[in-house]
Amino acid sequence: MSASTDPAVPAMPQEFLDLAERVNNWGRWGADDEIGTLNLITDEVVRAAAATVRTGRRVPLALPLRQDGVQTGMIPGRVNPLHTMVQINQPLVGPDSVATSDDVVTMGLQAATHWDALPHASHSGRIYNGRPADTITAHEGARFSSIATAAYVVSRGVLLDVARAKGLDRLPADHAVTPEDLDGAEEFGGVTVGAGDIVLVRTGQLQAYLAGDKHGYAFPSPGLSVRTPEWFHARDVAAVANDTLTFEIFPPEIENLWLPVHALHLVEMGMPQGQNWNLEKLSTACGEERRYSFLLSATPEPFTGATGSPVAPVAIF
Amino acid sequence: MSASTDPAVPAMPQEFLDLAERVNNWGRWGADDEIGTLNLITDEVVRAAAATVRTGRRVPLALPLRQDGVQTGMIPGRVNPLHTMVQINQPLVGPDSVATSDDVVTMGLQAATHWDALPHASHSGRIYNGRPADTITAHEGARFSSIATAAYVVSRGVLLDVARAKGLDRLPADHAVTPEDLDGAEEFGGVTVGAGDIVLVRTGQLQAYLAGDKHGYAFPSPGLSVRTPEWFHARDVAAVANDTLTFEIFPPEIENLWLPVHALHLVEMGMPQGQNWNLEKLSTACGEERRYSFLLSATPEPFTGATGSPVAPVAIF
Amino acid sequence: MSASTDPAVPAMPQEFLDLAERVNNWGRWGADDEIGTLNLITDEVVRAAAATVRTGRRVPLALPLRQDGVQTGMIPGRVNPLHTMVQINQPLVGPDSVATSDDVVTMGLQAATHWDALPHASHSGRIYNGRPADTITAHEGARFSSIATAAYVVSRGVLLDVARAKGLDRLPADHAVTPEDLDGAEEFGGVTVGAGDIVLVRTGQLQAYLAGDKHGYAFPSPGLSVRTPEWFHARDVAAVANDTLTFEIFPPEIENLWLPVHALHLVEMGMPQGQNWNLEKLSTACGEERRYSFLLSATPEPFTGATGSPVAPVAIF
Amino acid sequence: MSASTDPAVPAMPQEFLDLAERVNNWGRWGADDEIGTLNLITDEVVRAAAATVRTGRRVPLALPLRQDGVQTGMIPGRVNPLHTMVQINQPLVGPDSVATSDDVVTMGLQAATHWDALPHASHSGRIYNGRPADTITAHEGARFSSIATAAYVVSRGVLLDVARAKGLDRLPADHAVTPEDLDGAEEFGGVTVGAGDIVLVRTGQLQAYLAGDKHGYAFPSPGLSVRTPEWFHARDVAAVANDTLTFEIFPPEIENLWLPVHALHLVEMGMPQGQNWNLEKLSTACGEERRYSFLLSATPEPFTGATGSPVAPVAIF
Repeated sequence: MSASTDPAVPAMPQEFLDLAERVNNWGRWGADDEIGTLNLITDEVVRAAAATVRTGRRVPLALPLRQDGVQTGMIPGRVNPLHTMVQINQPLVGPDSVATSDDVVTMGLQAATHWDALPHASHSGRIYNGRPADTITAHEGARFSSIATAAYVVSRGVLLDVARAKGLDRLPADHAVTPEDLDGAEEFGGVTVGAGDIVLVRTGQLQAYLAGDKHGYAFPSPGLSVRTPEWFHARDVAAVANDTLTFEIFPPEIENLWLPVHALHLVEMGMPQGQNWNLEKLSTACGEERRYSFLLSATPEPFTGATGSPVAPVAIF
Repeated sequence: MSASTDPAVPAMPQEFLDLAERVNNWGRWGADDEIGTLNLITDEVVRAAAATVRTGRRVPLALPLRQDGVQTGMIPGRVNPLHTMVQINQPLVGPDSVATSDDVVTMGLQAATHWDALPHASHSGRIYNGRPADTITAHEGARFSSIATAAYVVSRGVLLDVARAKGLDRLPADHAVTPEDLDGAEEFGGVTVGAGDIVLVRTGQLQAYLAGDKHGYAFPSPGLSVRTPEWFHARDVAAVANDTLTFEIFPPEIENLWLPVHALHLVEMGMPQGQNWNLEKLSTACGEERRYSFLLSATPEPFTGATGSPVAPVAIF
Repeated sequence: MSASTDPAVPAMPQEFLDLAERVNNWGRWGADDEIGTLNLITDEVVRAAAATVRTGRRVPLALPLRQDGVQTGMIPGRVNPLHTMVQINQPLVGPDSVATSDDVVTMGLQAATHWDALPHASHSGRIYNGRPADTITAHEGARFSSIATAAYVVSRGVLLDVARAKGLDRLPADHAVTPEDLDGAEEFGGVTVGAGDIVLVRTGQLQAYLAGDKHGYAFPSPGLSVRTPEWFHARDVAAVANDTLTFEIFPPEIENLWLPVHALHLVEMGMPQGQNWNLEKLSTACGEERRYSFLLSATPEPFTGATGSPVAPVAIF
Repeated sequence: MSASTDPAVPAMPQEFLDLAERVNNWGRWGADDEIGTLNLITDEVVRAAAATVRTGRRVPLALPLRQDGVQTGMIPGRVNPLHTMVQINQPLVGPDSVATSDDVVTMGLQAATHWDALPHASHSGRIYNGRPADTITAHEGARFSSIATAAYVVSRGVLLDVARAKGLDRLPADHAVTPEDLDGAEEFGGVTVGAGDIVLVRTGQLQAYLAGDKHGYAFPSPGLSVRTPEWFHARDVAAVANDTLTFEIFPPEIENLWLPVHALHLVEMGMPQGQNWNLEKLSTACGEERRYSFLLSATPEPFTGATGSPVAPVAIF
């Protein structure tokens, strides 16, 4: 989000600090830990997740990576993918020899379907596990907890289809998803979120983008309430993703407190979060398969020092 | 590979054309097919692959994406990833508010651990399924069979550890991996390659890069012989990747015939291939687990029109 | 301009072909010539241009190169400059040593204030001097007449302030600048355009962008009429630039004939043209100095193979 | 330059601090000044420079911008230009209509022939005019004295052909150019450097790159001695450029003091400096014209917030 920084705005409000204290995981996996709640995806969790596969049906969750992507320029520098060809059918030896084509891309790593790495957010000068925020530099990027430390993200995925659970295609733009909504979606899906799960929260907001309304997709947007991190914390969830640009309700619930859910998830809990995930076909598939859990494979690209990465998640039933 | 195009060099030799005819899959999955041998990964194959998971151990196979990557400039335009920060701890509202960091990257899509999409190679003016090579343009990229059509690449993976099967850490630079080598590696691993499998062929060549010798890694290089496509074709393999820059033996086995294996796999068979995969830890893991097959998740990023994509593969035991 | 290509649309109309014949310069400077009308800037022209300098006043004509530039996404791939820091105060030896900062940019070469090189346009399979259009490739870019061949662009500049000559700040969006308008602006400025001059045509359209209306700036736009190339041809002008995105009137004067002025200037005449030049301060300066000619220095960056380049022109009085 | 930062290395030595005090220009043009010695290029200087033009001969001084440029990877992130086509002869309406080609580039702004802006260097936490170095951020780049503030760089240019003055084609790699060398080159050229001049110092080092030896060009390299800033300061020179990658002698004259000349010129004097300028043809032209001064036009591209920019300088005789 772009915003002018106003020195008159006070520091983090007490309400936030109380929430932060309740969900904080600093030190939980040691002072040297860089991956936070991904530690909750144990071998046993993975084994159990693989055991859920029954039909072999696969559903991809990534948006196409292209110039006409979800970014509108609202977030400075977060550019949609610009794909160009550096070679087109370039012959290798003679004019009729084997020829090759090669591509290059320039893109914001958070531009499309992506994971935020833990240092994507900081507050009060700190990133996850209490490390100084100034360990992120132009030279190195993020020295700690960069997206490359999330070397494998494979676990049980659970779709919490909040919109459908409420009988809607899409939540209203001013709807903050609450813990009660998550409970309702669990019940609707006949599923119980557990330790190490990756939770996908469907709002239906992506339908705006799919219908051609980028600006309507971006803002205003439904999204997670500042009250949900406690819910994820209580369940020991490993990661959360949804189908919005902002992830959390935007404009925010608390005046002058932008992105508190980012700060709670990434900084306090050390929990990666994902945005712009296409959950439309997954919603259909879960309905048809009559189950809302699956094996989810969603490993980011290991960009050294990066605070995020595109990801091409696949749900396997 | 960069090479001057010499009009005196004749078109594809008969030896190549005979091989091409024997492995050709054009029309096999219909005239409209864009994904070739990925069709062989059926729901049943995926189900069986998931059923092989026993311990939950995960092994990542991607090289870090960074400026100091495997590219040396030998292949024009295939640039190593250049990662920069567009925001570093940028406060959103006031000076002590939540702050965010954002990244951007420019990279060759074939620069690091990647999949070649089918139109990455053409010969005689054709790409896979007989489509005209000039359907690849600067404007659109590849109109058919772009990497975005490989929406999910999850199957059984099989490591054929050719180097270890021969009692070596690393194959000599002039060693062309033969069908007999593949047979030997199957026997060594106690595994039989079958329909829909993704085969990973380990030469050990990546050790050169890991030891800091980029140029020695690039060239000369061991790699697949022009005789191996028939082996993969007979087994109905879905995709093949290895731990070299050139994929196939380089310099080539047949004078003035560069990248014949690329042409046979990508153009004739319609089989994706992967390069620069780090199979070192996988080799260790397979030895320790005493099994050379596993669930492999290796979905590329869905770049519209692209002839390749970085991939972050994970093997799950 | 982005447009779907409709096979039902006929080839170039006779009206265009007649104009093309009248202004064609192919072969005029030899079959090997790559720089077209830049040949008209002789040493003598430069000497005379330098001799016009009287006060030493300098006026820069380039827009700032930044993410918030004139591009709106209407022209696919022509991305505004994305500037990022790769080093920020990075110490070289110890923590208190000299430190350096370094930058990187990704941008469309035609995104901001720029010159179009001759091969930026083609028609009927030809570029300037009758060369085949397919000499432009992904591998090499433009083999002939690339912007790098315009190694020095320094001459007498003449401002034709068409808007002010008509008593307007800015021309209406549907105004095609005619030869009569150019005559009128000459008279208004008390200047006569001659051989080797670089003509700057002011429409005032850039005021829309400067006022924050990017979309209004882009389209619809006043610009040169298809009748003006003959005027420039008759005067042996070396190059023409203006203060619009499209250069010529857009939507076009002749139905289904987009960018005919581009084709006449670049392909037929071999005359470079410039767009998005900021002529606002120049208009003021010319009024104050009571002269509409000056020394103009406007050399593009020598990108090998490029069909355009950003330029930072300076007028010197 | 890439170097590990060693906390044991002491801060700036006294020798440097003494030099800094003697050449410091902070406050000379006011506390708000951003352009330093460019203030010395007055209207009168420009008028006199234009008056030196006698023949109209023009000599371009920029290296081609291309992938095979001078960068070797020694300086992290300073990537050679990667030029790609985003459109190649793309028809606008129908298949035989006017077609256009468009380009995009990614490049380090200091990669080729360039100007360093004043904030390119900092020391002791300060940039030019005493401003805090931390005014350079990932979000904005350089808030003060960015290259965009150098809106016009046109003045008298003087070639000091140090190599030829010594009877050499090229200086030895360990030769630090001294004030006495500059005096000798003035005498050789029959020219006296004065206030507002832009001085071009030729070492001949670029011949290594032109002959294909990039690494030999980069390092070790002759260049300016730490003693020369006082010479430029005494003459009130506006800017200095030369034909090396490092600008100053490298390895440096004072142990553990890297880039002291950068710090003196950019931080203390506020004087822009240029590198990788091709002075070979200029050397020939000056010899033929028997004069070593000329009109020099060398305006950088106005990248907002940038600490450097490519430039396409032209000398006019």
